[in-house]
Order: sequence, then structure tokens, then C-alpha cells
Amino acid sequence: MTELERMGEKARAAARVLAGAGAKKQQALLHAADCLSARAEEVLKANAEDLEAAQAQGMRPALQDRLRLTGARIEDMCRGLRETAAYPDPVGRVLEGTVRPNGLCIEKVCVPLGVIGIIFEARPNVTSDAAGLCIQAGNAVILRGGKEAFHSNCAVVRILRDALEEAGLPADCVQLVMDTSRESANEMMRLTGYLDVLIPRGGAGLIRAVVENARVPVIETGVGNCHVYVDETSDIEMAARIIDNAKTSRPSVCNAIETILVHRNIAEKALPVIAARLREKQVELRADEATCAIVSGCVPATEADWETEYLDYILAVKVVDSIDDAIAHIARYSTGHSECIVTENYANAQRFTREVDAAAVYVNASTRFTDGGQFGLGAEIGISTQKLHARGPMGVDQLTSTKFVIRGEGQIRG
Amino acid sequence: MTELERMGEKARAAARVLAGAGAKKQQALLHAADCLSARAEEVLKANAEDLEAAQAQGMRPALQDRLRLTGARIEDMCRGLRETAAYPDPVGRVLEGTVRPNGLCIEKVCVPLGVIGIIFEARPNVTSDAAGLCIQAGNAVILRGGKEAFHSNCAVVRILRDALEEAGLPADCVQLVMDTSRESANEMMRLTGYLDVLIPRGGAGLIRAVVENARVPVIETGVGNCHVYVDETSDIEMAARIIDNAKTSRPSVCNAIETILVHRNIAEKALPVIAARLREKQVELRADEATCAIVSGCVPATEADWETEYLDYILAVKVVDSIDDAIAHIARYSTGHSECIVTENYANAQRFTREVDAAAVYVNASTRFTDGGQFGLGAEIGISTQKLHARGPMGVDQLTSTKFVIRGEGQIRG
Repeated sequence: MTELERMGEKARAAARVLAGAGAKKQQALLHAADCLSARAEEVLKANAEDLEAAQAQGMRPALQDRLRLTGARIEDMCRGLRETAAYPDPVGRVLEGTVRPNGLCIEKVCVPLGVIGIIFEARPNVTSDAAGLCIQAGNAVILRGGKEAFHSNCAVVRILRDALEEAGLPADCVQLVMDTSRESANEMMRLTGYLDVLIPRGGAGLIRAVVENARVPVIETGVGNCHVYVDETSDIEMAARIIDNAKTSRPSVCNAIETILVHRNIAEKALPVIAARLREKQVELRADEATCAIVSGCVPATEADWETEYLDYILAVKVVDSIDDAIAHIARYSTGHSECIVTENYANAQRFTREVDAAAVYVNASTRFTDGGQFGLGAEIGISTQKLHARGPMGVDQLTSTKFVIRGEGQIRG
Repeated sequence: MTELERMGEKARAAARVLAGAGAKKQQALLHAADCLSARAEEVLKANAEDLEAAQAQGMRPALQDRLRLTGARIEDMCRGLRETAAYPDPVGRVLEGTVRPNGLCIEKVCVPLGVIGIIFEARPNVTSDAAGLCIQAGNAVILRGGKEAFHSNCAVVRILRDALEEAGLPADCVQLVMDTSRESANEMMRLTGYLDVLIPRGGAGLIRAVVENARVPVIETGVGNCHVYVDETSDIEMAARIIDNAKTSRPSVCNAIETILVHRNIAEKALPVIAARLREKQVELRADEATCAIVSGCVPATEADWETEYLDYILAVKVVDSIDDAIAHIARYSTGHSECIVTENYANAQRFTREVDAAAVYVNASTRFTDGGQFGLGAEIGISTQKLHARGPMGVDQLTSTKFVIRGEGQIRG
């Protein structure tokens, strides 16, 4: 038995306790928040070790910033745990129920998934965020973070485990994989029989590797090649405002847009307004020929630009002949995350929302709203871009399964 | 581009039409039922070819029977299509909806999965059953049946495609993979970008191969190592009746039981009653020592017996010391399909339904009820034993996904 299989066994045992833990989960998470806050120094010290190693290895400043914890960031983690603890416990909720003609009472009941594996990269806050969401939904979790955040993750998990035990739950509800080599990630992807689901949280490369190699069921999150389509009849000021917000309010996140499509009949009026607004924010435009003819100073776009999730101050721009062309472009290049039409035309709004196949389809609003909190669904572990199980924000409710409970008085099937 | 990729492209195009086809789907399925009925001779002729080849190759009679179509069986297939057409169309149903404080109207809407791949074995009726369920849920389907049923499947699919086209839908909503080699199955398992989900329908070997090798998301169906636990306080007559029904009413199906667990304090009274009843039906008992000491003529059980899905007139029997032991045995050996407690004790009924982790957990009723029709959920493509996406009967509603539709008036995120 390998170390990961041993962890899997412990997780399964912990999951069985958690499945029946009821309100203890909430108490444990609140206690964990208090402990994390009280022991912040311990986490900061561990984080300083990680940062020192990162600097010594010449890690890019943007990545160092992801890795860095501060008192305020630890308080954010504590607040996250408290918010998750306040989210209604889904376990045991009766989702449907009927009595059959033969008298059988059939209920469909919400149950935890069981054991969730999470592979993530350099953000140490994922440790407590993910653990909180998994536990509130009744699941044990095995976390495998990046080696850059190893000391930070160890400190956070140590505190969470202590807190869980003090609250009367098994420490093994949360386990951290100590081996941060590629091999441990690969082994997790094949840990059938122990993991009920594996969720990669990180960049497109990580997610692709997991989808390619995993034997356990995977929930794909986060890659967002998102579009705004500016329809023939759109309010140009509104379009510019939405595009600006969707591109520049936080370019590094998955619900930021990467390409805009502009109807030919409005392009000459709309593009200069949009371009002027984006240039105030130093956004580089990578544009097709038609756009270049209207807006000067664009970089000519290549095929790769329609496919790229820049996560940066870069936006691809294309003029299209019709809403059909826009929908076809999105069908071809979208990752199915968030897509938007800006239009004043009722029929086109209806068509776009019906025909565009994505987790979130918007009319006249910024794609930046694709977020569990913004949707009123609570905190989330990521945005699922797959169609199985859960699509869109993956919060506490999405980290559950169901079972049928059938109560009879001796019925047999004829 | 391979042949399967070409089929995948055609399926994606057909799926886009189907997603917006509304009531046309229902009309097309009713028309398909009429056509299948009218052209039954064509199917019977093709089936005769398959049967001839099967006999020539010395196929076992039980398998030949699975392969055989008759006029009555074709009428069953037609009835299945009509019943599925009568099932409420799930596409476009609003599952949840809210208005956020900023005025955004958010709806969670039911949408088709897209393209479904189905790999199945020798039963030609799966062709029309699966196609009907997929289409009613708005999905295109790529079917890959066993080579034994090749001519039968071709005939059924030809008739379905003709009918779809006559009803104004693309014929490519249903496609049959002509290559019945192992390679085509393997390629289907890796057809990411074309298949949204793959459902294997067949024996444990097929399902294991698909789960091990697939890169596209899989829904695992059908393997059932199911148990009845006879609690200390159970009504012995009821227990014997339920066990008899769950074992012998149709031993070859996944919701039949394979092992019974009997509480030590009732074993001496209950086992002779249960054994007498099963022996009337020629059920072989594979029993632990304690059972052998009570019931004569049992075959001593080995470890393998607790793990085996016999699908036959064989039942494993074990005496347990407590409900804890029963739950632990089930946790270890169950495939998570259907599990039953027979008891008169309220607390034990509650514990069993809460703690046993399976798609369907019964109190005092036969496991044979795990079936879409019996649950009032309509026809199904199989019983999902996995926890992601859908657990239990996979009917029309379970062959869908969701998307969020967000309608605004220019909202941006602050």
C-alpha cells in the first residue's frame, strides 16, 4: 500500500464520520477560523520560508504575490471559513419525494460525495477555502498543493487538523500530500477506489494534464476564453462600459474576456469608442483586418489570438457579418465559461442565450459576474466548464451527490 | 481526421439543431416508432443474419436469446420510443431563478448534454431505447454496438435516421459506428472535443475497460453487488419474501441481490425459513461457517463470494454480529447500487438509510424496484452507480446539463 493509498483509507474513514456529523461540521469550521486567526504568526513564519526560497529561485514577482500571505490575507481566509460555515448544510436535504401506487415512499436525498482530491498551484489560501467547502458539504479532502507553497500549506493544514480534532471531528477530514513531486499528482489522478472526484485548481496546463491522465472522475474548472459580442443594435456606451469592465477590472481571472466580436454595421461607430476606452487602460488590441481599417495602432491578429486566454491587458477584436457568425465563432473558440451579447434586439437576445453553449450566458452585463458570491450561491472552489455534474460556480451544494431512500412494508416486485 | 472524428463533427452539428428543436423531437420519436413498426420485417431479416452467424460460431443459447428479435420485441421497442416521446421535454426548463440586488436576473436553465456516446453489447433493443432517450433530452448520439448485433443495429438505425429526416430533424442525430473492432471502442473513449459523455451499457468487464481507459467523462452504470441485511428484529416471513423476490424474480439483472447478511440473534430462526424458500427455486447457497452450522447442504463461501456479482441462481450468506458489522461488510463489498435492511427497529432503519452509501437504500422492500419506471422517473439507459452527475436511474432528465442565463441592463462589477 502506497502512502497515498494509506491517506485514501484514512480519508474514507473520516468521510464516513463526516457524513453523519450534522451541525458539528459548522462548529468545527467556526473553530478552525478562530484557530487560524489566533495562530496567524505560525502561518506567516512558514510563508516567509516559502517566499525566501521563491526569491532565491528567482520566481516572478506576480507569482510571488500569489504566494505571499499577510495578516490581512489570513483574516480573509478566516472570513471565508466563517462564511462557508454559515452556508446551509446540504446533507440530508430531501430534494424530491413521492409515494408510489404500491405504497413505497421514495425520497431523493442529498449526500456528500465522499472523498475529494484537490490539486492546486501556488496560492496557499486555496488550502483553507477548499477544505472549508469540502467539509461543509460533508466530504473529506486530500489536498496536493504546489511545492512553492509547501511550508505555508503545512502550517494551515496543521491548524485546521488541530481545530477539527478539538471540535470532535477526525483530523483526517483534511490531509495534505507531503510529496509535491509530479509523481504524487499522477498517482492522485489514478486513485480510484479512494477519491470520488478530483478537482484541479490552477492554470490551463494543470487542468489539461489532469483531464488527459485522470482515471478518477474530474471536475474541470476555470479555463475561460470568454467573448463579448456587440450586436448591430447595441447601445455603444453600454458595450464599451461592459467590455472595459469585463477586460480590465481583473484581467488575470477566468471570467475576464479575451475577444470581442463586433457586428459590421455598427463597427465604424462602436470600435473607436471601445478602443479609446481600452487604451486609457493600456489594453493592447489584436485585431482582424476590418478592425485595423477602422482603428489605428492595432496588432494584426493571427489564428492563435482567437484561441488564447491572455489573462492580461490584451484583447482580440474581430468584425463579424451577423449574429450567426458571432455564435459560430463562439462555438468554435469558446471554452464554455462566460459569453455575452450586448444588444437592444429582443430576438437576438433570445437566440444568443438559447444557442450559445456556455456555463453562463449574458445579455447586457459584464462576464465578471460569473462567481458563486455574485450569483448568490456562496463561496466556490472554481467555475465548472464541463457539462456533467455541475456547470458554473462549484459551491457547497455542488460538492454533493444524492441517494434514493425507499421505505416499504414488505413490497416485492411482481 | 478519422472516421469517428467525422462522425463526431456531424453529431455536434446535429446536436446544435436538436438543442433548439423543441416539440419536433417528440414528433420525430413518435414517427420513428411508427416507421420501426411498419418496417419490422426489415429488422427481423437483418436479425436473422446476425442469429445465423451467432449459431455458426456456437454462441451460448442465453446470449442468442439476448440477440434475438421477434415481432413482439420490436413492438416493445416501438412502445419504448412512444413512452419516451411522452416524457416531458426537459430542455429549457427553468430550474432556479433569482433577481440579484443589482437587478441582474439569473436563471438556471436545463440544456442538453450535447453528444452522447454509448458502447453496448449484444442487445439490439438498446439501439432504439438509447436513441430515444438521448433525442428526447436534446442530444445527438453515437452508438457503438457489439459486432454480434451488427446487422440488426444497422437496420434499426437506418429506420430511425429515415424517420428523423422525414420529421425534419438531421439524420445525424443518431449514428452507428460501423467498425465494431476493439479499436473503435478505444477511440470512442478518447474522443474528447466531440463526446460530452460516454455511457457503457453491458457487463462488468466492458464497464471496467471504459472507466480505466476513457478520457471523455463516463457515466458508470449497472454493476450491482447488492445485499439484504436481515436485522435482529425483522419479520422473518417478510425477510424471506423480499430475499426470494430480490434474488429469483430476475437473477440476471443488476438490481438482483448477491449476498444476504443475517443477524446472529435471528439466524437460527430465520435462515431455515429463507433457505427453504430459496431451495424451492434451486438457488445455490454459498455460506460462511455459522450459516453452514444452521443450514445443511450449503457450499462453503470463500472471500471471492462476497465480491461476486453472480447474476445467477447463487446467493452468498453470512451471519453478522451487529448492524455495524452489516454496514461495514456492505461498505467493503457493495458496488453502491441497491442495498436493503429488513427490520422492525426504527433506529436501525434510520441508521441503515443514513450510513449505507448506495444509489438506492431500502427498508423492507425488494431491491428489484431500482428502475426508472418503478421509481416513476420514466425509461432509463441504466442505473448510475457513480456519485458525480446522476446516481440511480439515468432517464431523460439525467441526460441533461444546465446553464446560467443572466439578463442585465448594462451592469458591471464594481
